[in-house]
Amino acid sequence: MIRQNIKVAVDAVVFGYKDKILNVLLIRRNIDPYKDSWALPGGLVLENENLEQAVERELKEETNVTVDYLEQLYSFGDLGRDPRNRVVSITYFALVKPEHHDIKADTDAKDVAWFDVQDLPELAFDHAKILKKAKKRLQNKLTYEPIGFDLLENKFLFSDLEKLYMTILEKEIDRRNFRKKILGFGILKELDEKVSEGRGRPANLFQFNKNQYFKSKEEGFFFDIK
Amino acid sequence: MIRQNIKVAVDAVVFGYKDKILNVLLIRRNIDPYKDSWALPGGLVLENENLEQAVERELKEETNVTVDYLEQLYSFGDLGRDPRNRVVSITYFALVKPEHHDIKADTDAKDVAWFDVQDLPELAFDHAKILKKAKKRLQNKLTYEPIGFDLLENKFLFSDLEKLYMTILEKEIDRRNFRKKILGFGILKELDEKVSEGRGRPANLFQFNKNQYFKSKEEGFFFDIK
Repeated sequence: MIRQNIKVAVDAVVFGYKDKILNVLLIRRNIDPYKDSWALPGGLVLENENLEQAVERELKEETNVTVDYLEQLYSFGDLGRDPRNRVVSITYFALVKPEHHDIKADTDAKDVAWFDVQDLPELAFDHAKILKKAKKRLQNKLTYEPIGFDLLENKFLFSDLEKLYMTILEKEIDRRNFRKKILGFGILKELDEKVSEGRGRPANLFQFNKNQYFKSKEEGFFFDIK
Repeated sequence: MIRQNIKVAVDAVVFGYKDKILNVLLIRRNIDPYKDSWALPGGLVLENENLEQAVERELKEETNVTVDYLEQLYSFGDLGRDPRNRVVSITYFALVKPEHHDIKADTDAKDVAWFDVQDLPELAFDHAKILKKAKKRLQNKLTYEPIGFDLLENKFLFSDLEKLYMTILEKEIDRRNFRKKILGFGILKELDEKVSEGRGRPANLFQFNKNQYFKSKEEGFFFDIK
């Protein structure tokens, strides 16, 4: 095989949805280059671990976070993205509830924190570009499959789901059209229970119909042409 | 940086649609391991080229094919996928018309050919797994954006578009529902010209409305909740 000196790394974009805000998990670097800068958790792959094991290990080591499922996002390999060496980074992303995770910095991280994606510090390397790609992917996913099953409380108002969508899409949605589409999937159960929110009339609570949700997710929600 | 001996490669899945058949471009390996086996075109990334440049170069070298746009598919990095060395492969895919490309084997390839994806030889390495992922991605893309703009003739019958979808999805589609959905996007122009196909009544020809197609593609076809 030809001589090749390229290193392989993994990086994780962990989004957290809380209090109607989309956050991202960042670490503060303890080592050069970009010492003291905020960055995505990640690091070099060990020779005896698979890529998924590497990203889970780095995330656990640097932030103490364990995520059930990290989806592969994209691989970044442009020349010069790391001043030390040519490094190709295979990136992963996940969407979680921050309150389910105790964060704690360790190894290459001197600090760890959730940041509102609308109010970020300057990021190390090309991590702003990676984060942008992850946001775009998350927004795209929303347009072809409903998400949020594990981000909302067990029982929620329809307006909570609307806010989740508007927060991630970063824009207003046509509420009438949205309600029609989402209810048309048959994945929500409208409960008899009502609660009041603000000054409005009491509104019904909803619950996800788990079985139908996972069945539809498996089959694909859109374009049912079969 | 830690010692790490992992090589970085790229591989290309180039699908070709012709005569209502979905084909994939394969090369016959000229070197060990898997000498004489069929495989996806690809190879190691050079230190001074980006990933996209690497996959374009390998494709050109091994098959003489140049593709306008290769989309990144997925990165495969499991232990043991190459008997020589740990290799992470960043894979790309494209969908083209075979008749627009003159194929010719060279460098590490002793032969190159289009194969019906339904009738494939045994593939080297984990290339069957890569191809499976690429097929799945292509099928998913079809469910959230119409494709085919550059795969059909300039003027085509609606049944040609149906066949393209059925071929890629590998199943029958609900033709009435399909027609309604596709026409609803406003990306097709029904012409006054009619042609007869087989024993049926003459049917109208269609053309893509290029401007609307690319505009809609940019905005996203589905879930217009904004």
